[in-house]
Amino acid sequence: MTSIDRVICGNDDALAAGPDLLVRNIGQLCTLDAPDAPDAARAGPRRGAGLDDPGSVGGAALAVHGGRVLAYGPQAALLARCGAPRAVHDAGGRCVVPGWVDPHTHAVFGRTRQDEYERRLRGETYLQIAAAGGGIQSSVRDLRGRSDDDLRELTVARLREILEYGTTTIEIKSGYGLSYHDEARMLRIAGDAAAAVGLRVVRTCLAAHEVPTEYRDRRDDYVRLVCDEILPRIVDEGLAERLDVFCEPSVFDLEQTATILRRGRELGLRAAVHADELEPFGGAALAARLGADSADHLIRIDDAGIAALAGSPTVAVLLPGTVFSLGLRGYAPARTMIEAGVAVALATDFNPGSCPIASVPLIQSIACTQMRLTPAEALAACTVNAAWALGLQDEVGSLAPGRAADFLVLDVDDVRLVPYHAGRNPVREVWRDGRRLVAR
Amino acid sequence: MTSIDRVICGNDDALAAGPDLLVRNIGQLCTLDAPDAPDAARAGPRRGAGLDDPGSVGGAALAVHGGRVLAYGPQAALLARCGAPRAVHDAGGRCVVPGWVDPHTHAVFGRTRQDEYERRLRGETYLQIAAAGGGIQSSVRDLRGRSDDDLRELTVARLREILEYGTTTIEIKSGYGLSYHDEARMLRIAGDAAAAVGLRVVRTCLAAHEVPTEYRDRRDDYVRLVCDEILPRIVDEGLAERLDVFCEPSVFDLEQTATILRRGRELGLRAAVHADELEPFGGAALAARLGADSADHLIRIDDAGIAALAGSPTVAVLLPGTVFSLGLRGYAPARTMIEAGVAVALATDFNPGSCPIASVPLIQSIACTQMRLTPAEALAACTVNAAWALGLQDEVGSLAPGRAADFLVLDVDDVRLVPYHAGRNPVREVWRDGRRLVAR
Repeated sequence: MTSIDRVICGNDDALAAGPDLLVRNIGQLCTLDAPDAPDAARAGPRRGAGLDDPGSVGGAALAVHGGRVLAYGPQAALLARCGAPRAVHDAGGRCVVPGWVDPHTHAVFGRTRQDEYERRLRGETYLQIAAAGGGIQSSVRDLRGRSDDDLRELTVARLREILEYGTTTIEIKSGYGLSYHDEARMLRIAGDAAAAVGLRVVRTCLAAHEVPTEYRDRRDDYVRLVCDEILPRIVDEGLAERLDVFCEPSVFDLEQTATILRRGRELGLRAAVHADELEPFGGAALAARLGADSADHLIRIDDAGIAALAGSPTVAVLLPGTVFSLGLRGYAPARTMIEAGVAVALATDFNPGSCPIASVPLIQSIACTQMRLTPAEALAACTVNAAWALGLQDEVGSLAPGRAADFLVLDVDDVRLVPYHAGRNPVREVWRDGRRLVAR
Repeated sequence: MTSIDRVICGNDDALAAGPDLLVRNIGQLCTLDAPDAPDAARAGPRRGAGLDDPGSVGGAALAVHGGRVLAYGPQAALLARCGAPRAVHDAGGRCVVPGWVDPHTHAVFGRTRQDEYERRLRGETYLQIAAAGGGIQSSVRDLRGRSDDDLRELTVARLREILEYGTTTIEIKSGYGLSYHDEARMLRIAGDAAAAVGLRVVRTCLAAHEVPTEYRDRRDDYVRLVCDEILPRIVDEGLAERLDVFCEPSVFDLEQTATILRRGRELGLRAAVHADELEPFGGAALAARLGADSADHLIRIDDAGIAALAGSPTVAVLLPGTVFSLGLRGYAPARTMIEAGVAVALATDFNPGSCPIASVPLIQSIACTQMRLTPAEALAACTVNAAWALGLQDEVGSLAPGRAADFLVLDVDDVRLVPYHAGRNPVREVWRDGRRLVAR
């Protein structure tokens, strides 16, 4: 891990004129910037050893102007070049990091599914639970029968908690609607609730989450409905920036997945793929070939899938909270992927069935202890690489000059304590666009 | 799971005269009481199906008098028999449970050991880290060189956080002193810090945690020092209620462990044993044979050890947070133990090396997802059975009439949501002896 020992500034004149805000007395500033890396290394997500470098500055200060990062560096050096700031905030010697970017959630849902959680612990299989009306279809029924107001209220409460864990940018998928009407409702509520809470949101249409029961015997008709009606109308109404497909043998096969991805590309949507979760099926390779921003889950990815991702800009979004919550034994082969040059990110997969974990800090703990990421790798995977997975690398995920001033003041003086103390929320303050949203 | 549908009262006249406090509008009250069980089943810790019953009352109220539970039951029925209470508290339809009892921690320590955490993730083994001065010896060096004031301040801050996770009774071990002087300091600080925070504490002398480096070549001399000097002086000064021994081939063997346990019994100390953590070694069977209250860890316990525990009052204290934090693959065989009739409890093992987890709710999540306990079993293992592991079953661990009014108001309406939402602190209020210590 290198440390940055000089001032990095986006605009010397603006700094000399005095920024809107100066955050001082930062014990450890993790910028996730890489000012000394060759340009080529900055042009894509972090890979290999690059993932293990938080771009750390000790005894630092951070200058914010117009809601954006203006400059950062060792405090004395920065102060020497900085005009009188309009506001000063003292970080009390604590760590400052970019706000977490959570690139995979299903955070709009109605009831929680602790009944299924208990039944699984008592030994019922996923198939038994699904046959009894559980699983995704249970959340679909619940959502279709629930009012907008009710769903919005539940979502606002959940997103407020998520903000307190330090997430400042969240991806939210639809996928419990499985009809134009209910997918659109979910995406509208995702946007409204995030705006109410102050979270930056990326909305992903996951109409291809499952085949709804009314299409069970004519699955290709549902693929046509997604391509010909749901996605075009969602795009027309500006309700989503991305699409996602659940690519597994029992859900959408490779050809159906490719059909939906191509249609999304025509419509100008960015793409993700739920891939290789249940068996090695070629979903990751397909995602890479069709230019998806991310391939997600990847518990069962094989060597060909790893090679395909390593040679592409597609980010591998790993969801270890799901493996933990389901009590599975096999995590995604994160170390193998990192060593092969795959760009790895982490996400919560927050949802009522397979992963009721909303806390990015706990996801970092699970990633470290169960997949052997280092604390610095987990940090980069929840910030800069997660931003790449959403195509938001120029906006968020690092504190490089020009990025949004979305940052966290943590109540630790060493960022490795974030995963170390599992089950703890280390977030003391949450700032977005240079304004403080949470002070705990 | 049975539900209790009548009033259970310890003193009808006192109830009719009006209690000090009435907690009303409790959506789900988990008493961990078993008023319908035969007397024999109430005379020991919960086993088998008994572990799976939280003693739940729906739409309940709880009457508290003189800091003790006076009565509980369905609200309307309780109100009909209850005189005017001096205070009323509305639980808002939420769950109320007994305060957690954490029967195994090493919560007095100086510096955290995130450096070793990172080195382990990078592939160093425990032996390599220990050879480089890490491990327990590192905490011993740190503690011996640290002032009382500093250690007390760190401990108070940690215990305050532990109280916020809902722990109301905590066991704290010494074991980073390994001399009379430093063991006594640790136990004194444990007591002082717990009193400052309001936690009920049980102090355990773990002078037999490791052989200090100065005794490395004369290990039996250290056993003699423990038996002839450290334990008697600790008892004389009233600094501990229990002792513990790290019984493993590379630390204290079976004979040394038995020697120390017998000496503790002569001195009137209750006992626990760190047993069968690294290999099946007979520690659990020894603990059962010598009447220890608990045998702890048990990752590698064998059939003989399970049979010995099943036939004894010794409680198996499982520490799944340690397995999780170390990234080990094998958890203690909890289901096998429960089915064999072993009385199982859970604890955090909170310590700076192998388990920096202080949150009992997260321990419940790990126990459910990784060891397949049901949420109700995890609840009983963190309350009533944990109290038995400390010999405090008549004081805490359930809300049976006469027990201390130590309880939590959780921000959920179904207690299964506690383990379900891993990484979340569901505790809204903490009450001890009928007084509220935490309101979040």
